[in-house]
Amino acid sequence: MLDLTRIREAQKRIAPFVRKTPVLQNKRLNEIAGQPVFFKCENLQIGGAFKARGAFNAIFSLSDRDARHGVVTHSSGNHAGAVALAAKEREIPAFIVMPENVAPPKLAQVRQTGAAIKFCEPTMEARQAAATEIISENGATLIHPYNNYDVMAGQGTAAAEFLEEIPDLAHVLVPVSGGGLLSGTATAAKGISKLIRITAVEPEGAADTWESFQKQKLMPLKDPQTIADGLRASLGELPFPIVLEKVDEVVLVSDTEIVGAMRQLWEELRVIVEPSAAVTWAALREGKVELSGPTGIILTGGNVDLDRLPWCSR
Amino acid sequence: MLDLTRIREAQKRIAPFVRKTPVLQNKRLNEIAGQPVFFKCENLQIGGAFKARGAFNAIFSLSDRDARHGVVTHSSGNHAGAVALAAKEREIPAFIVMPENVAPPKLAQVRQTGAAIKFCEPTMEARQAAATEIISENGATLIHPYNNYDVMAGQGTAAAEFLEEIPDLAHVLVPVSGGGLLSGTATAAKGISKLIRITAVEPEGAADTWESFQKQKLMPLKDPQTIADGLRASLGELPFPIVLEKVDEVVLVSDTEIVGAMRQLWEELRVIVEPSAAVTWAALREGKVELSGPTGIILTGGNVDLDRLPWCSR
Repeated sequence: MLDLTRIREAQKRIAPFVRKTPVLQNKRLNEIAGQPVFFKCENLQIGGAFKARGAFNAIFSLSDRDARHGVVTHSSGNHAGAVALAAKEREIPAFIVMPENVAPPKLAQVRQTGAAIKFCEPTMEARQAAATEIISENGATLIHPYNNYDVMAGQGTAAAEFLEEIPDLAHVLVPVSGGGLLSGTATAAKGISKLIRITAVEPEGAADTWESFQKQKLMPLKDPQTIADGLRASLGELPFPIVLEKVDEVVLVSDTEIVGAMRQLWEELRVIVEPSAAVTWAALREGKVELSGPTGIILTGGNVDLDRLPWCSR
Repeated sequence: MLDLTRIREAQKRIAPFVRKTPVLQNKRLNEIAGQPVFFKCENLQIGGAFKARGAFNAIFSLSDRDARHGVVTHSSGNHAGAVALAAKEREIPAFIVMPENVAPPKLAQVRQTGAAIKFCEPTMEARQAAATEIISENGATLIHPYNNYDVMAGQGTAAAEFLEEIPDLAHVLVPVSGGGLLSGTATAAKGISKLIRITAVEPEGAADTWESFQKQKLMPLKDPQTIADGLRASLGELPFPIVLEKVDEVVLVSDTEIVGAMRQLWEELRVIVEPSAAVTWAALREGKVELSGPTGIILTGGNVDLDRLPWCSR
């Protein structure tokens, strides 16, 4: 299903299309953490998020026959932009279902690719219904943002690439939402070395993975409330067993902690990270994670509405 | 005085201390420019600016006997932080003269290094007088921000490194203030290939290099008025003849154009650049520069007060 071999194959498949993102380090952040911390800048990935990895792998894994009918996804976030980009690159139709209240920058990003956008009411039911309609009308393939092994394998390539550059990472921290990146990262890292510790970080206001991990049972997320707009999805059924098997701990952070961490990353690393990408550093600087050696953090995305920064509002 | 050999020596000297900064590319920015554009991210350099290159080269070029007495500089900007950092690394005293109205983030950066800070009135005379006093009292060596061949050679290492990574650059764009980076860049680039075109970009409100270049005579800058706080210095006597000989053109941009370009770089590249670092992209996207092939832009710095972003003020 999902193993290091599949992630390595994904790495080769997407190499012509995605960026080998830079890894940054910072003296002050090292001092705060008490260990060398390496930041893998997926916020500098094409489309501004790691999502390009999963989308390109899934879309370039399709047979020509399937691909011809196009792909569909429902998302208001970075996955929508990534699917639209990858479909454009493969020169196949993309149908993107978005809620009417989608953030303008995310809409603009999808618009630029020329994908067909279908608006719907901002409920999960309406989104799924709209996607199902497109599938039955056009025969398009659904590219689910995380319940899809090709997507999960694609997301795992970030950690594989990270460990090629910094082979002695003892610990990797990743945000968790639907679990695509988390399951891919854990599979890649533990496949390379069983000793690497994996910590998932989740907002307090969307703590379904934390709860599912404690209860060893998939607990759906109800009414997420967090500034981390990329972390409002519910852990998926395909990632869940991998998370149970390979993730060492799940840690929670508050929105205030997220904003503080985000601001510090902007100031110290001088790269733009979105709130969802700052949860890991938040956990670290708040002393919620015990480190045992060189630590890797995947900065997941940098898509922020610059007119609505948390510290600039009146 | 200043040639490619000296820049190569500087490259070796500073290699243990400075970062090999990443080069970014962006499809949309390429489309706007009509040529592939490569961005050398000196905003991700240690201290958040290319200034570390010149400061480390100058300070590590000092004899042990001179170094022992420490170094002094007067600056309210990125050079101050760079000198403080380099002196700390060499374990020698640093004396930094700063105007009383220095921006809090720049002050904090110098404070962190443990350098001795001397405040003075915010005039060039007061700054120079304070520095002279420190030199006569302590025997410290002045590290001038641009009228210094070791500093100029250090700044030139950014272009040398850039051309190692992207050897086919036909054109390089650099901001100009005192001329340290510009003279270093022009010397490195033309030393590697005479065919590389060099464009300097300057704010309209601090157009002394533009005027000096037209009149072929060094015209001092009076009362600079620009949002680009790193570009308010007057072109130096040592860089000037090199600029006349090696720079192909000087182009002006307005503050409005600078802010628009800065915002677009944040959005598209997802890195933080300060206004001074955005002048080159401003010139390019406003169609003020004719390109003839792959183009390199040195993003000079990313030190911005996040509480006072141009688009977030009321």
